[in-house]
Amino acid sequence: MKWCRFQSENKSAYGIIEEDTVVEVSGTPFGRYTKTADIYPLSSVKLLVPVIPPTFYAAGINYPEHMTWAAHMRGEEPVLPKKADIGYRAINALIPHEKPIIIPKDATDLVQYEGELVIVIGRTCKKVSKEEALDYVLGYTIGNDVSERSWQRSDRTMWRAKNTDTFKPMGPWIVTDLDPDKIHVKITLSGRLVGKYDVKTAIFGVRHYISEMSQYLTLVPGDVIWMGTDGANENMKDGDVVEIEASDIGVLRNPVVRER
Amino acid sequence: MKWCRFQSENKSAYGIIEEDTVVEVSGTPFGRYTKTADIYPLSSVKLLVPVIPPTFYAAGINYPEHMTWAAHMRGEEPVLPKKADIGYRAINALIPHEKPIIIPKDATDLVQYEGELVIVIGRTCKKVSKEEALDYVLGYTIGNDVSERSWQRSDRTMWRAKNTDTFKPMGPWIVTDLDPDKIHVKITLSGRLVGKYDVKTAIFGVRHYISEMSQYLTLVPGDVIWMGTDGANENMKDGDVVEIEASDIGVLRNPVVRER
Repeated sequence: MKWCRFQSENKSAYGIIEEDTVVEVSGTPFGRYTKTADIYPLSSVKLLVPVIPPTFYAAGINYPEHMTWAAHMRGEEPVLPKKADIGYRAINALIPHEKPIIIPKDATDLVQYEGELVIVIGRTCKKVSKEEALDYVLGYTIGNDVSERSWQRSDRTMWRAKNTDTFKPMGPWIVTDLDPDKIHVKITLSGRLVGKYDVKTAIFGVRHYISEMSQYLTLVPGDVIWMGTDGANENMKDGDVVEIEASDIGVLRNPVVRER
Repeated sequence: MKWCRFQSENKSAYGIIEEDTVVEVSGTPFGRYTKTADIYPLSSVKLLVPVIPPTFYAAGINYPEHMTWAAHMRGEEPVLPKKADIGYRAINALIPHEKPIIIPKDATDLVQYEGELVIVIGRTCKKVSKEEALDYVLGYTIGNDVSERSWQRSDRTMWRAKNTDTFKPMGPWIVTDLDPDKIHVKITLSGRLVGKYDVKTAIFGVRHYISEMSQYLTLVPGDVIWMGTDGANENMKDGDVVEIEASDIGVLRNPVVRER
């Protein structure tokens, strides 16, 4: 099943995508819902960020090649993380599929994509095992963890580096009933393949993160967990288009614009 | 004006506190609202966290004595922060006035309070000056940034140390039209005064944080910014009651319970 959020006249609504159409839904995928009689061509609707999460979680360092690359960029040797220590991102930075990533005037050229699988939590959970973890997932979407690397080094926190407005594209929709271990991610920059990896190569997988986090905190419907990226990243410049493709989900595409 | 959120039958509602009563409101303090005819004695209502923030911001290191104390605890010399680099906390951890802080079974004894002033944003803002900053504030409330110090040292992020369920008491209500520079904070642990400071001694003040953050990100109605704490902290143990008092706002009180 494919869930989206979209602009319907002056309000936002959830919808179910069936082939090339969106069926407007009354309610949400997290509770009771009914299909309405309003059906739109998918190509005609303005997609929104598929969910506004109560808490926006992100695994920072979770794939071996990316970790090694990032450590070498800092002039350090890579140290494998021992625990699934989750991090946070911010709501203000979220933008949907097709909306431009705006590079601020005072950013350096080191503004880079990170293509990621995103887990969307469907049911409240606390202290669940790895075996049960996927029962609490509604589905999966795609995220681009845009990062300004000079700020990532200079600031005490990642507030500007990762949470500047427009730095968190997420979408285009949420797909349910997938096996996360079978998902393959491909990243293209203005049509050129710049990265690819298998989600199953993550240091800590989806089940592990959900189980470990839930030992201390309650995950609630709509919470998202961005799973990290693999490989090296390149800079994005004004006029570029970045596409993150995840098999069985779709393509998250955003143009890049530098503020003048 | 004093705004609260409270349990009204099976739903939550905003209310305006007038002397010893709560007037139920239709709408929110962030938009249009009208007072209803439903008025309750303040002592009879169950207060909720006064706002569920879209993004939950927190200044980590923002008062000189606390910074010096924390650096010495780590065996380091204090280094004054050069910039107002904001951090993040998580929604799952929020609890209202009077609800118990639960120390997990596997936490050490190093679970400590941090009494803080909390800014509640009232209007959307981006790229505002220090002079304009307070125009975007709805009001002020109180926060207790409960922290498990061993996890704060051992984990790569602050997820468990600061965001374990119940570790973020906030309330009891929001007071508008205050001068933040005149607010004085007092912390008592089971009736014993354990800390006090003036908000105006912060390294970076309320106006500075709002202005700096807004250069890169959009602050929206309901966002909260926790301003940090001053001084040394002590451990809280099972059976303690911790009270954070902020002049002209009130007292945020929470009992402490260790999970068995």
